[in-house]
Amino acid sequence: MTGQAQNPHHVVIVGAGFGGLETTYRLAGAPVRITLIDRRNHHLFQPLLYQVATASLATSEIAWPIRSLVRNRPEVTTLFASVKGIDAAGRRVLLEDDTDVAYDTLVLATGARHAYFGHDEWEPFAPGLKTLEDATTLRRRILVAFERAERERDPARRAAWMTFVIIGAGPTGVELAGTIAELARSTLPPDFRSIDTHEARVVLIEAGPRVLGGFPEDLSAYTLTSLERIGVEVVLGQAVTECTADSVVYGGKRLDTRTLIWAAGVRASRAAEWLGAPADRAGRLQVAPDLTVPGHPEIFAIGDTVTIAAWNGQPVPGIAPAAKQQGRYVAEAIKARLAGRTLRPFRYHHAGSLAQIGKRLAVIDFGWIKLRGALAWWIWGLAHIYFLIGLRNRLSVALSWLWIHARDQRAARLITQGSSKVMD
Amino acid sequence: MTGQAQNPHHVVIVGAGFGGLETTYRLAGAPVRITLIDRRNHHLFQPLLYQVATASLATSEIAWPIRSLVRNRPEVTTLFASVKGIDAAGRRVLLEDDTDVAYDTLVLATGARHAYFGHDEWEPFAPGLKTLEDATTLRRRILVAFERAERERDPARRAAWMTFVIIGAGPTGVELAGTIAELARSTLPPDFRSIDTHEARVVLIEAGPRVLGGFPEDLSAYTLTSLERIGVEVVLGQAVTECTADSVVYGGKRLDTRTLIWAAGVRASRAAEWLGAPADRAGRLQVAPDLTVPGHPEIFAIGDTVTIAAWNGQPVPGIAPAAKQQGRYVAEAIKARLAGRTLRPFRYHHAGSLAQIGKRLAVIDFGWIKLRGALAWWIWGLAHIYFLIGLRNRLSVALSWLWIHARDQRAARLITQGSSKVMD
Repeated sequence: MTGQAQNPHHVVIVGAGFGGLETTYRLAGAPVRITLIDRRNHHLFQPLLYQVATASLATSEIAWPIRSLVRNRPEVTTLFASVKGIDAAGRRVLLEDDTDVAYDTLVLATGARHAYFGHDEWEPFAPGLKTLEDATTLRRRILVAFERAERERDPARRAAWMTFVIIGAGPTGVELAGTIAELARSTLPPDFRSIDTHEARVVLIEAGPRVLGGFPEDLSAYTLTSLERIGVEVVLGQAVTECTADSVVYGGKRLDTRTLIWAAGVRASRAAEWLGAPADRAGRLQVAPDLTVPGHPEIFAIGDTVTIAAWNGQPVPGIAPAAKQQGRYVAEAIKARLAGRTLRPFRYHHAGSLAQIGKRLAVIDFGWIKLRGALAWWIWGLAHIYFLIGLRNRLSVALSWLWIHARDQRAARLITQGSSKVMD
Repeated sequence: MTGQAQNPHHVVIVGAGFGGLETTYRLAGAPVRITLIDRRNHHLFQPLLYQVATASLATSEIAWPIRSLVRNRPEVTTLFASVKGIDAAGRRVLLEDDTDVAYDTLVLATGARHAYFGHDEWEPFAPGLKTLEDATTLRRRILVAFERAERERDPARRAAWMTFVIIGAGPTGVELAGTIAELARSTLPPDFRSIDTHEARVVLIEAGPRVLGGFPEDLSAYTLTSLERIGVEVVLGQAVTECTADSVVYGGKRLDTRTLIWAAGVRASRAAEWLGAPADRAGRLQVAPDLTVPGHPEIFAIGDTVTIAAWNGQPVPGIAPAAKQQGRYVAEAIKARLAGRTLRPFRYHHAGSLAQIGKRLAVIDFGWIKLRGALAWWIWGLAHIYFLIGLRNRLSVALSWLWIHARDQRAARLITQGSSKVMD
């Protein structure tokens, strides 16, 4: 495994999320050529996707064309293509269009989708939030619900349009619930004539005993109080047992609602299937301490598609910083191998957990210090702006947030794509 | 026709484009209540729609939720609904959901769609540009074409993906052709590895004898030279006789292309049909000099859905300032009637014609002075930023343009919605 100038070592990276992109960045200057494959043409800043779904940010503020991110790296080729499998023996990635790409080293960074725990039939009624299309679909559903309520004369049907149910109270569920509550209470009231949008119900249902289960208990308690203060009804310890087009059942009770949002769980991409490798219940590949696939030292797998039990006995969380650390590790490992060295196993360093609850409300757990309230919210905002790519997007997001918080106006309140279908 | 405090005169405005919105704005303070009906939830700044189609601007930079534009006008009710007809005798607007809205005065400002002159079968192959969805569809087609060219090994098929044909050389056609040429020559070259995007062909086909037929001849000639200089092939005096999924026929020649864009003509909305009123060949209602529908003094019609022969013997052009002038006139006419006065007939004042050709290239005809080149481009840019609604969008668009012109980066290069279908 050595690089040659004429035919350098070929690294194929599948997935241009946080992990795959970090691997690409950190391989700069290494004696390799890189092919970066993604079925989307853009890298997505998923931590702010809920803000697109709630009309706070525009799609282009949190997404970047992958090609433009590696435009100054002539050794990197970007392929806009879908992977359908891997021929591990022949060292080839198989694409949907029946072509293939040979590799010397393969990095699988293919992420996760939302999962319905054996109830895939719920997906059309309770869409999740993983892609830009998911976000604009949710945005359309939320905005159309208020429009329908405005025109509905039957009180029961109107109440169903004004009821928003979020399933799952992890960071995404909390952030969605808090933002929809603010949309209803701060942004929309002056815009409607027949309905009082203050009356909208935002219900957050969690099967576990508390919100933000991965956070310390006192921050969970603070989050619960804050959510209730801004008007979110929180239901704890109740599992959802049915989702339909106009209701949800939990704890034996049926609630009429026209807007259900799924934030309750994810399932890894099909990487384990492609390799016929062992996976956990959520479909996540089990990797060795050096992030390689057992039996395949030339295949690394990172990010949400793998499970690593390596952090305080807990699994490494499925968050952007974890994927980036793994991407950096893999780049170093590839460089070390090409130089004939070996690297000590991957170690995850948890920098902290953050979640926004609402305007000037957030919680942060740095481990050595816990923050909540306005200070946490400012740190949350600055951290997210810092991690956006490029000065332009930082300025643009800062401008959008400034407007939301100074004037309660959300610029991206656009109902697009298939509005007439939803209207019917 | 007098207003009463308890049950004021009810003005129903159909369409929240430039004309309908201006009528609404100018009726502020009048003793009326207003219902503003639109099948979209947003007002669209159509003059910059081609910039969304060419990935220069984001959708939310040129669209505003209608409700938020009239939030401070409690007498204005916004209805997000589709109109299916008008019962002129009963003074009712009939909606798709089988409800109706009674009016005292009706203002039809329903605009136009692109028209295929009896060849509606061309629409799937040569989409036009009137809505946000049209713009994101075109954006996806243009960006996917470069992606497909990058992966195509057959030279003829690759050339077809790299050939972009715009039909119609009015302002929209010229602006699209110029911007696609710049995308290929300035923005994209560093991003691709297999293709040289400089080799992309941008062909602008016009049936008439010159580009920008509505402009003075010397500005047309300047535009033609400028387009050719930035790499657009202009074909004049040739009508398109066939559009298919992979080619276009004009002047007896077939050109292989995978991206056809229709900018050749518009057809008025169905307002004339709704009223059973006389219309011209493009479906435009003929209105009286006071913009009322003959036989129906209580119905006004304005903007692209009407034809008024009143300006230098030429028809009033289908541009935003014309629609706004008519909207203002109708608001004044309604106020005058309620006060028992009458207004002199509508007179159109042509402030000027503008078109952008490319970076630092534009033409302006103010009548008393004609401008071209960099100065015209600056005036074009400042005028468009001035006419955007709200400080936030002005800042945001200015920031986007600054980035494009300083760094040749276009933030909105996102392929969304149905990308996999297009990829197949």
